[in-house]
Amino acid sequence: MGIKRRSFLKGGAVGALAATSTFPAPAISKGRKRWKMITCWPKNFPGLGTTANEIGANITRMSEGRLEVKVYGAGEIVPAFELFDAVRGGIAEMGHGWDGYWIAKHPGAPFFGGVPNGLAAYEQVAWIHWGGGQKLWDDMWADFGVRAFVSGVNPPSYFGWYQKEVNSLDDLKGMKIRMAGLPGEVLNRMGVTSVNMPGGEIMSSLQSGIVDAVEWGNAWSDLAFGFYKVADICYFPGIHECGPNQSLTINNEAYDSLPDDLKEIVKVAAWNGTMQLYSETVYHNAAAYQTLKQEKGVQFKPLPEDVISEFLKVSLDVLFDTASKDPHALRIYNSYMDFRKRAINVAPTDQLGYLEARSSQL
Amino acid sequence: MGIKRRSFLKGGAVGALAATSTFPAPAISKGRKRWKMITCWPKNFPGLGTTANEIGANITRMSEGRLEVKVYGAGEIVPAFELFDAVRGGIAEMGHGWDGYWIAKHPGAPFFGGVPNGLAAYEQVAWIHWGGGQKLWDDMWADFGVRAFVSGVNPPSYFGWYQKEVNSLDDLKGMKIRMAGLPGEVLNRMGVTSVNMPGGEIMSSLQSGIVDAVEWGNAWSDLAFGFYKVADICYFPGIHECGPNQSLTINNEAYDSLPDDLKEIVKVAAWNGTMQLYSETVYHNAAAYQTLKQEKGVQFKPLPEDVISEFLKVSLDVLFDTASKDPHALRIYNSYMDFRKRAINVAPTDQLGYLEARSSQL
Repeated sequence: MGIKRRSFLKGGAVGALAATSTFPAPAISKGRKRWKMITCWPKNFPGLGTTANEIGANITRMSEGRLEVKVYGAGEIVPAFELFDAVRGGIAEMGHGWDGYWIAKHPGAPFFGGVPNGLAAYEQVAWIHWGGGQKLWDDMWADFGVRAFVSGVNPPSYFGWYQKEVNSLDDLKGMKIRMAGLPGEVLNRMGVTSVNMPGGEIMSSLQSGIVDAVEWGNAWSDLAFGFYKVADICYFPGIHECGPNQSLTINNEAYDSLPDDLKEIVKVAAWNGTMQLYSETVYHNAAAYQTLKQEKGVQFKPLPEDVISEFLKVSLDVLFDTASKDPHALRIYNSYMDFRKRAINVAPTDQLGYLEARSSQL
Repeated sequence: MGIKRRSFLKGGAVGALAATSTFPAPAISKGRKRWKMITCWPKNFPGLGTTANEIGANITRMSEGRLEVKVYGAGEIVPAFELFDAVRGGIAEMGHGWDGYWIAKHPGAPFFGGVPNGLAAYEQVAWIHWGGGQKLWDDMWADFGVRAFVSGVNPPSYFGWYQKEVNSLDDLKGMKIRMAGLPGEVLNRMGVTSVNMPGGEIMSSLQSGIVDAVEWGNAWSDLAFGFYKVADICYFPGIHECGPNQSLTINNEAYDSLPDDLKEIVKVAAWNGTMQLYSETVYHNAAAYQTLKQEKGVQFKPLPEDVISEFLKVSLDVLFDTASKDPHALRIYNSYMDFRKRAINVAPTDQLGYLEARSSQL
């Protein structure tokens, strides 16, 4: 689309916030530092919020309070979607969020949050930790004065909650569906109208018929939202959100001011959040699925095959078009897609193969 | 089988080692501690050994050297299978190993290393971290004076390397196969002869025909071993070893002597090793599979359906019989199997469902 990298840098300067970028001296007192961790999640939100809390507590405990982290929910200091600019501008030293939100800052960002028809959770982390992802991520945000560590990952989401059956691609066309980001763009190209809205409006929009179906998260989160009260058909699998990872975004000036031991503590605490969130969600999803199916009467249905194949095909177009807007985003895309191809090839002989064999006992 | 818990305690007392259980004062000097981490792996062994190295380095760096960890390969201080007794007896403060090896200490141990027809890697960690596994683990080893944290997990192994095709359960019967532990017991009950042997003897045993087939690990490790040079058929999936996790076993007396910040550093470094090993193996497996298939001419074949169903069925018998030897092992078994059931039920709507949909593009 011809948008050049320079324009992201200019466009992302965020005026007032960027102007406050130097940290005040009082942040350090008697060798003790106090840091703010803002988040994109409601305070103490199960999974995402509790993982942020745990990362903050780990840092505080491992440093014996030399680096004391206080965690804030969305809206307590800045709204959820201003997290990136607030960390960049030094309003908070770090933030726990999702890089998919920062696509307007850089078109390479979604690849560090997970993309439709992309890597499974463990593959997403493998690419970042071992496949060159971290270096590409560091390079992408360096111009913005921040860095990010993966610090949370999730199993696939549900494709969404529906009041009427979808038996073919034609049934889906013309519907109005709550789905955000790149997956929403995929739906739009398929003749569906996707809309985004904050979590708090989703239930009422579904109830009042403003949208025909909604997508949010997985069994654990969707049970908590109570979508089953309004729509009793749940479609899977999560071809649109297949292994999203969270990130801990850190102001570089703040990070660089830390002694080596505290740098290591921050990094390891962030990384440790990855499996904490993953395992917590995997555990609670299994129980929530049972509740939804057996107690709430939800019908779980696989998407029609033509919907799956079209969504996967269009996803690849959207990924390429997104990455093509910037040379560094294209480097990220190439690295991601290269590993994705190998991951898809090996899966039937390892993880997919085992899950299929085990399922034969159902 | 009527073996009572008491007998494990007696049988596990390990004479000389247990007698040296108090730590010498010189371990602490100028407020700095030096700890030994022994391992079950050859020094710097890719994946298992490098993860142990990283956990040790993380602890040293995060504590600024106040707790300096030196990592030893198998045989440097004690042989691999003496790790548990050495940590218990205080010869080393901690050890990176696999709880499946310690079945003679307690029949509940294999469930903390992963069992045949069991949980996938992320589910295994979910059960330990969130499903009550850690408490059951702590209680199991408390009488032995040690504790363990999960600190590594792996994707499924390959079922093994064969020179001749296996087209049915009958073809498998009568064969002699290198497979250890509970999976080996499953094979034995199926009319196969399983044998265990150290890694260093596997290649020569296959070459000389002492065994008909061998099992070891996944694409990454098996490529390094070079099994493809002797047997060019690789069977999957890893129904026998579906998501094994590693553990950091720590002497309780040593752990309790740490101040709170160092306790937290040790725990978080151990946990962080979980996703480090997992992501490293997932990344390298994908590349190794490509090499094995395209450059080494390996034929990857799915096991015949009757082999899969019989192995899965007999596995459940072996798990129950193992756990029935001890009341606490039975508690562990019940907790594990309860979550396993829910995990199998939810899989088609989340991880399995996504991997299948994505595979349709192959």
